[in-house]
Amino acid sequence: MASGKILVAQGGGPTAVINQSLVGVALEARRFRNVERVYGARHGVRGIIDQEFVDLTQETSHNLEMVASTPSSALGSTRDKPDEKYCQEIFKVLRAHEIEHFFYIGGNDSSDTVRIVSLEAQKAGYPLRCIHIPKTIDNDLVGSDHTPGFPSAARFVAQAFAGANLDNASLPGVYVGVVMGRHAGFLTAASALGRKFPDDGPHLIYLPERIFVLENFLAEVKATYERLGRCVVAVSEGIHDASGTPIASLLAKDVERDAHGNVQLSGTGALADLLCDEIKSQLKIKRVRGDTFGYLQRSFIGCVSDVDQREAREVGEKAVQFAMWGNRDG
Amino acid sequence: MASGKILVAQGGGPTAVINQSLVGVALEARRFRNVERVYGARHGVRGIIDQEFVDLTQETSHNLEMVASTPSSALGSTRDKPDEKYCQEIFKVLRAHEIEHFFYIGGNDSSDTVRIVSLEAQKAGYPLRCIHIPKTIDNDLVGSDHTPGFPSAARFVAQAFAGANLDNASLPGVYVGVVMGRHAGFLTAASALGRKFPDDGPHLIYLPERIFVLENFLAEVKATYERLGRCVVAVSEGIHDASGTPIASLLAKDVERDAHGNVQLSGTGALADLLCDEIKSQLKIKRVRGDTFGYLQRSFIGCVSDVDQREAREVGEKAVQFAMWGNRDG
Repeated sequence: MASGKILVAQGGGPTAVINQSLVGVALEARRFRNVERVYGARHGVRGIIDQEFVDLTQETSHNLEMVASTPSSALGSTRDKPDEKYCQEIFKVLRAHEIEHFFYIGGNDSSDTVRIVSLEAQKAGYPLRCIHIPKTIDNDLVGSDHTPGFPSAARFVAQAFAGANLDNASLPGVYVGVVMGRHAGFLTAASALGRKFPDDGPHLIYLPERIFVLENFLAEVKATYERLGRCVVAVSEGIHDASGTPIASLLAKDVERDAHGNVQLSGTGALADLLCDEIKSQLKIKRVRGDTFGYLQRSFIGCVSDVDQREAREVGEKAVQFAMWGNRDG
Repeated sequence: MASGKILVAQGGGPTAVINQSLVGVALEARRFRNVERVYGARHGVRGIIDQEFVDLTQETSHNLEMVASTPSSALGSTRDKPDEKYCQEIFKVLRAHEIEHFFYIGGNDSSDTVRIVSLEAQKAGYPLRCIHIPKTIDNDLVGSDHTPGFPSAARFVAQAFAGANLDNASLPGVYVGVVMGRHAGFLTAASALGRKFPDDGPHLIYLPERIFVLENFLAEVKATYERLGRCVVAVSEGIHDASGTPIASLLAKDVERDAHGNVQLSGTGALADLLCDEIKSQLKIKRVRGDTFGYLQRSFIGCVSDVDQREAREVGEKAVQFAMWGNRDG
């Protein structure tokens, strides 16, 4: 039988509701009589190796609820990708603390981490139950309609474009807003949710699911500008050419990659600036403005979806139930 | 005695509450028995010349209230700066419509427009009462503690940095957020309003009121990063070197200016990218991210200050009272 000590951690980029899932785990776990301790590891799997644990069992419900309603990863996060040696270090620490349940809240890369840790645990004969709890910003997790984190980010993007559309209508020109989403266009598509009237922007939306051709883009901006006297464009940061190379990385001097091999796309205004420069020089339109929504999409305080909060809490609770009642990984 | 027809228009950059002032004028004016018609000109003074008028007298209170609570300039805006000839065109149209009161909602440049129009009206012997109604984003209007528009923008910036600080704490590194404000640092300073704990960011704030020295900036980022393992920086878009040249325009290939001679600073991520590149290359810090808040600061829907809404309404109402009871320009 599994020990009564469980561990929860957060990996990858933070979201507005990832702490709801954390608190869902902490509060639900304590409803099970065999659960003795709920530990949180600081900064994901990195905190296991560094033995940076927080004892969530000792936190009051009020304090946990305060954390739940705060955006970003309260325990801290990491982009570390464990290999076999890293996993051995993890098991050494878990064994010392008699931890046999590991809940990891994260996206695709974190689910891969869970898979690796689970596999290595089996190989090493360590009885570790590993459960992945999903979170996302750009809704890129396969197999679900939507994943917690996306609704709040979508709300931010919808509100941002609804406002940018009105701004652009008052001082006409071309406005380009660059939205997060490496391979998934859901968040960029959310830019359309605030449209109300037929001439409301965004008038053009470019998703990473399609090949981006600069000439077509310019022709479409030109046509819209001639028709309406203005043009609001939503562009995914992940747009790429026919070879799959991101337009953003065609420009970057140094391409930065994380441990999972992802090219760094956010945190620079280069893509918006490139597109604006092309519009100015090729189409001779004077008032061209570009914004890159950047980290505000996932961290802005005060733009959280109620549904998202509730669902994020539920996936945390359900993960504990699956582990305890179902007695299975997932 | 002045005619019973008044004209209201909006100039310069939109704000979250500029329509409150517009509706304040429209509703208050109709309380005066001598006011027969309230016209709105589309796109500021440009709409007078183009005779693009909206008859606000015919709008229902409900419709006006809906407009009041919508960000951005509902009548449209302009950055035109009238000269003598432009003013003659204005008077020709106003005379034809028997308009003898002109309310212009705008910032410093729009107040200059009001001054010019008023002066030219006197010279031309046209009995026009001109009233400037203040609005701002960066609180750069002299003679007032704060101006409508600033509180909502400040709230956006405070909430953005409160979230960015948590994001940066979960995945440590350096974060640079660039805030609007050509010569006034109030909005950038508002980045500090969400700080709660001693180690909360922004840890460094750079205002346009001080000379920006890149070497000092890098030394301060380095010291903070070494002390806390992370660093959140708020930078005004208007930071400049000792000669007064904006750091942002040192980089721009083509410097764009409006009719009032202002260099275009917003709508590009170049300043944040430059500062991030310097931090990466000089300080060898790996995780460095930059965001330029851009137009979201003034147009984001769903981040409006209640106090700001109320005060913006009041300045619109008071402007009408000064004109009608005080019978004076202002």
